[in-house]
Amino acid sequence: MRGGLALLTPTLQSFNLFSSPKKCLLAFSAGNGRTRSRLTSFSAMASAFKPEQARVPPPVQSPPPPVSKFMIALCQLSVTADKERNIAHARKAIMDAAEKGTQLVLLPEIWNSPYSNDSFPVYAEDIDAGGDASPSSSMLAEVARSLHITIIGGSIPERSGDHLYNTCCVFGTDGKLMAKHRKIHLFDIDIPGKITFMESKTLTAGERPTIVDTDVGRIGIGICHDICFQELAMLYAAKGAHFLCYPGAFNMTTGPLHWELLQRARAADNQLYVATCSPARDAGAGYVAWGHSTLVGPFGEVIATTEHEETTIIVEIDYSLIELRRSNLPLEKQRRGDLYQLVDVQRLNSG
Amino acid sequence: MRGGLALLTPTLQSFNLFSSPKKCLLAFSAGNGRTRSRLTSFSAMASAFKPEQARVPPPVQSPPPPVSKFMIALCQLSVTADKERNIAHARKAIMDAAEKGTQLVLLPEIWNSPYSNDSFPVYAEDIDAGGDASPSSSMLAEVARSLHITIIGGSIPERSGDHLYNTCCVFGTDGKLMAKHRKIHLFDIDIPGKITFMESKTLTAGERPTIVDTDVGRIGIGICHDICFQELAMLYAAKGAHFLCYPGAFNMTTGPLHWELLQRARAADNQLYVATCSPARDAGAGYVAWGHSTLVGPFGEVIATTEHEETTIIVEIDYSLIELRRSNLPLEKQRRGDLYQLVDVQRLNSG
Repeated sequence: MRGGLALLTPTLQSFNLFSSPKKCLLAFSAGNGRTRSRLTSFSAMASAFKPEQARVPPPVQSPPPPVSKFMIALCQLSVTADKERNIAHARKAIMDAAEKGTQLVLLPEIWNSPYSNDSFPVYAEDIDAGGDASPSSSMLAEVARSLHITIIGGSIPERSGDHLYNTCCVFGTDGKLMAKHRKIHLFDIDIPGKITFMESKTLTAGERPTIVDTDVGRIGIGICHDICFQELAMLYAAKGAHFLCYPGAFNMTTGPLHWELLQRARAADNQLYVATCSPARDAGAGYVAWGHSTLVGPFGEVIATTEHEETTIIVEIDYSLIELRRSNLPLEKQRRGDLYQLVDVQRLNSG
Repeated sequence: MRGGLALLTPTLQSFNLFSSPKKCLLAFSAGNGRTRSRLTSFSAMASAFKPEQARVPPPVQSPPPPVSKFMIALCQLSVTADKERNIAHARKAIMDAAEKGTQLVLLPEIWNSPYSNDSFPVYAEDIDAGGDASPSSSMLAEVARSLHITIIGGSIPERSGDHLYNTCCVFGTDGKLMAKHRKIHLFDIDIPGKITFMESKTLTAGERPTIVDTDVGRIGIGICHDICFQELAMLYAAKGAHFLCYPGAFNMTTGPLHWELLQRARAADNQLYVATCSPARDAGAGYVAWGHSTLVGPFGEVIATTEHEETTIIVEIDYSLIELRRSNLPLEKQRRGDLYQLVDVQRLNSG
């Protein structure tokens, strides 16, 4: 419980770069950046390297998470051409997961529609209009509220004016839409004889990263191909994310090559949790998903994973592991801001 | 041979973002950034995202490599407390590798000395003074010249004035010292009961990244813990590196957790080759190395690896794979310079 308690208790002890875990590295601030001044008590050598300048604006320390531990469900759903069935099916999976005590449910990428450029315009919903204009997100809002859970709603094709997006909706425990992430990096790939897909034929890319403070922590959202860009994960970590969620549908070529690799790399490099959720595999579909939804811990270790069949992974996230790993190996204090800097363009411009 | 020829022949065809491999993505310029103007012929959508601004200064395209294919040797050497033996032993391994046709030899981190803070000052050499003041680097210079090969000389403890460094020397085929990389990120770790080591107790960190144009390509150098920092690899890729070499001695805790993961991540994220070279394992040593020297290809695929015993891996690097993978999945053209930018501080200031 030591780690858990430490997360919930703002501590005032002096910062010690290479303290033992018993002393605790203060990875979590008391909120609102109040502990940023601790950066000034680094060792003189570390200061010369300006680790805090390796991110521009300087990194925000992760806030104390609202819970020290919680159960997450990764619903690796089968997806069909029948949208009503897909919605009812997802609803049932969420209800089953909530019954088992999960506080956060993550759904797959494009769970209400086949994954194809032909289907996106047909299955797209007007999320902002809501109600009957968006039966998929309406269902998620309703079950989030009635079950009092947080839902990261995978993604669905979204219609907004003349544009189509690949969009993830995050619903809070009151059923309110907390955030909407539109896939930033569209999936355009051409490996002849293996996989060719051009999302940019139909979809428009999102305009901003999405990080959201939920009842179970500060979560950065990416959709599928977004995970291929290490910069997005670095940017979320610099904004104090506790974990990253990537609904994603890798395929039979990139799946075995990159799916687990990229999740583990994002987790290890940024010392936070990474959760992914794929549709179950339908070998007869036009686009065959790899499956293998996974939870990775802050040392890049696979905590729970599965094969490609329909299933729900229910597993615990223990935030004290983040603190422990950042104490073991204080990467953030070892960065060389004198040599490289990652700029969060929107955060810089908004400041 | 199509790929290989394409590397050697500056092409003038118009740039097509999602061209098939038959058309070839022009990953390699004709030199001196002459193809940078091609960035302006991106699709309008991609241009709005300013992919070329995701690196500051803008990325340098990889030059046509001087060879399309070549053999690399990773000498996973046993290391003892006997420095003379270590030098003679390394010399023999290099000569054996050259006899088998390798054009580039990579040695392990700290191959002339035990890996310990007690040993570093005792085994350290004055590389700049050379000759008898640095028998380890003198040997490397001599064999590089006599065998007409390039040597990336792992690392040795270097004494320079009052400071000690963990330093990698790169020797060209004429035996000249082409570059010296001093480990930038010192290895300070504390996992109680597992591994505790504080390089910063004795060593000073290097002041700059090291990228060098050799007879076998443009190579970025990192030493061991440097691989934990994705920023360094990104910076080398933005400088047009064809591959990255990391002499490294991960341990029995971080080895199984991170060694292969980080190599594969750096290769896949930057779409280039990554080679690592560890000392062989000595279970009786104060610091027990993980071994597992490895070559990873530009899709993050392990091309050749080994266990922990002493051995030399000899394997081919085929540069056409870089071009192919960047054509298959044009990550560099999909980055969002409107959202994030990695700044190379020294390159920016020198420009």
